Amino acid sequence: MSRIPVLEVFGPTIQGEGMVIGRKTMFVRTAGCDYRCVWCDSKFTWDGSERARLLTPEAVWAELVALGGRRFNHVTISGGNPALIREPMADLIRLLHERGIRVGLETQGSVWQPWFLEIDDLTLSPKPPSSQMTTNWDALDDMVGRLRAGEVNFSFKIPVFDEEDLAYARRVHRRWPDVALYLSVGNPDPAAPGDVAKTLLSRLAWLVDRVVRDEELVAVRVLPQLHTLLWGNCRGV
Amino acid sequence: MSRIPVLEVFGPTIQGEGMVIGRKTMFVRTAGCDYRCVWCDSKFTWDGSERARLLTPEAVWAELVALGGRRFNHVTISGGNPALIREPMADLIRLLHERGIRVGLETQGSVWQPWFLEIDDLTLSPKPPSSQMTTNWDALDDMVGRLRAGEVNFSFKIPVFDEEDLAYARRVHRRWPDVALYLSVGNPDPAAPGDVAKTLLSRLAWLVDRVVRDEELVAVRVLPQLHTLLWGNCRGV
Repeated sequence: MSRIPVLEVFGPTIQGEGMVIGRKTMFVRTAGCDYRCVWCDSKFTWDGSERARLLTPEAVWAELVALGGRRFNHVTISGGNPALIREPMADLIRLLHERGIRVGLETQGSVWQPWFLEIDDLTLSPKPPSSQMTTNWDALDDMVGRLRAGEVNFSFKIPVFDEEDLAYARRVHRRWPDVALYLSVGNPDPAAPGDVAKTLLSRLAWLVDRVVRDEELVAVRVLPQLHTLLWGNCRGV
Repeated sequence: MSRIPVLEVFGPTIQGEGMVIGRKTMFVRTAGCDYRCVWCDSKFTWDGSERARLLTPEAVWAELVALGGRRFNHVTISGGNPALIREPMADLIRLLHERGIRVGLETQGSVWQPWFLEIDDLTLSPKPPSSQMTTNWDALDDMVGRLRAGEVNFSFKIPVFDEEDLAYARRVHRRWPDVALYLSVGNPDPAAPGDVAKTLLSRLAWLVDRVVRDEELVAVRVLPQLHTLLWGNCRGV
């Protein structure tokens, strides 16, 4: 039986960012990532600090129902990079759809999986320079082409920390002007305790101001992370 | 020449709430309203405290360009209730579309206009009990039917202040389960000075908590007003 390395199942809560911001959803967070973003807010998915549980899709479903009862019809698959998992993830998505659940995915777009074509709300989140990761533009080109051909409902979400990141967002927008582009306020210190709302709102104000004055970033959306505004850097909400 | 009673033209800024939250947009705010919501955040549109300017669609466009240059391709028409204006508004929408601009509308859904069928992002915001207004359900039924028949991209947005408002939101959701439903955090005192972010975030936390525990409000989105988080109760942003 195929199994998924799962670090967290939680919810119901709301999606905090991107194309389905505010949507009531459950989260399934997988272990493992091919990236090492310096500001990653989920380093526990790849730094070895936590052991994943290997769960069958049926076991994941049982946990979702135990937590969410009849109070959800949307599940967000996040990571780490869930695209590192092939067959078991395809099985989970099939199972969720059979039960009438809508499925969202968040991935950086470095690895393709055929089951991307089954996702209802797909967020491609290529990482800007502040992450210290390198984008493979050809791979991303290929991915966008496949998602378009498959008529998948997808968007870009780029966290923006500084001017270099903004230049990166412009480059993405120039290359794929017809793909919805969400700019997300960077969270500079995802380990900071307490109420970080003030810091994040002042960063949001900065990002809005920059975008408002920009002639290239026109058909874009600027959004905060609602979960961080609400609950700071707490996990599992 | 037909003219529109305009109270404000401002932007570029971002849309603060609802179905296009975060979208870079310009605002055109019209004068006049058939409602008198007790918590209205734009009473100056109907309480006689400000005089509207009567502008031709071409003059509105000139102001938009003077403010926004080439830095926008989305305009939000808000009020008051812009649906009180017939021909001149149809002319403005046609003019905006001719210039490649996407048009959003916010209205309570009490008055129908044929030009609703031309709107790109239409928010119907029926008012819950806390407003002290009464909903005409048959009129709203009729409106939803026309918008569906015209394949308009529309959604409901309901501000929620209390449990009664939540019950109202459930009623809307039961009646039109297939229409996207956005729940918006109520702003209890739109005249309060200073930083109201803390108050609004604690209300958002309350609303998220209530929705998370609800078996009826499942396929919904919960959102704050970003503009109020950013700029408090200031106007023109």
